[in-house]
Amino acid sequence: MSVIDELTTELARLPGIGRKTALRLTYHLLKRPPEEIRRLALSLEGVAERVRACSVCGNLTEEDPCALCASPRRDATTICVVEEASDIVAIERTGEYTGLYHVLGGRLSPLDGIGPEELNVASLLRRVSGSAAPVEEVIVATNPSVEGEATALYLQRVLQPLGVRVTRLARGLPVGGDLEYVDGVTIAQAFAGRRELQAEVR
Amino acid sequence: MSVIDELTTELARLPGIGRKTALRLTYHLLKRPPEEIRRLALSLEGVAERVRACSVCGNLTEEDPCALCASPRRDATTICVVEEASDIVAIERTGEYTGLYHVLGGRLSPLDGIGPEELNVASLLRRVSGSAAPVEEVIVATNPSVEGEATALYLQRVLQPLGVRVTRLARGLPVGGDLEYVDGVTIAQAFAGRRELQAEVR
Repeated sequence: MSVIDELTTELARLPGIGRKTALRLTYHLLKRPPEEIRRLALSLEGVAERVRACSVCGNLTEEDPCALCASPRRDATTICVVEEASDIVAIERTGEYTGLYHVLGGRLSPLDGIGPEELNVASLLRRVSGSAAPVEEVIVATNPSVEGEATALYLQRVLQPLGVRVTRLARGLPVGGDLEYVDGVTIAQAFAGRRELQAEVR
Repeated sequence: MSVIDELTTELARLPGIGRKTALRLTYHLLKRPPEEIRRLALSLEGVAERVRACSVCGNLTEEDPCALCASPRRDATTICVVEEASDIVAIERTGEYTGLYHVLGGRLSPLDGIGPEELNVASLLRRVSGSAAPVEEVIVATNPSVEGEATALYLQRVLQPLGVRVTRLARGLPVGGDLEYVDGVTIAQAFAGRRELQAEVR
């Protein structure tokens, strides 16, 4: 197999990139100066070598503990539980949340053989029960999918006995969305979660 | 900048990959075992180091001349001129063509400052006039775009005096296409290029 085929095969392994796109990317790269291709190769090696999971929260990081866990400016009484480290990026982008995180590394999915032991649940329980600075609230921010809901319910069951407040991100209409195109389940949940209008005023 | 941001930035340079997709790819890679990331990095380095343009036809290759130019089974009397090396892959996939190739490395585009000197035209003329095995036909397979057409006309003008037959790939309805969705120019060219039905029988 030539190096061109090899690269195409490797690129085609990436999610959302089929054989044709991989070929297009390969030939795009072949038209660039070799230094540019090497720079991409170096970034990949840097990531393969230096990025590890934070031993505290499971976030992907070059230093352990990660910058979020190490920051004295984050509110240590709140932990936001997410499925994947990439969810942290999405939440941090909003700038709305100032607490800490905990990455589960997935969600409960009995059909795929993923139970609580396969997720970082034990370390979450240790953080909540054993912390020097006591944790007051755990915000469960698993995805609004069937498995995400099941995971949230499970976490609520195991966390509540520890005397911590367990909350879940609100479900409802996405901002900027059009009611006409919103699915029925979401509309039903938006009705169930409706709030008094004055409560919306800050 | 962290290595994660670095990789995201490098991936976002690729065509058709925006910042969000790059981030998704990065986090996908971070979930894979480091060996898999290294394998992609190695393929990239292999390509950066070993892939060169064939000194005869301009095809991208690890050996010079490339496998196509070196093959005794290819018909050396025919040269198919393409804009990019990736076009060769598309043509070879059909298995219909058995001649040689010549990669222009682009197409004429005066507005972008690309004239005949910026393309591999001189080497094409040398191949056609100076070959030991005389070239009988040059098939111009530049893209069916305005620039591709202009390039084809230019090539015809400079090649014809050398006593070689210059042909152009047929334009018409794409196989499997729906007349309703085909643009007017293509339909007009399909009419202009219409053939007697018995001529279609092989």
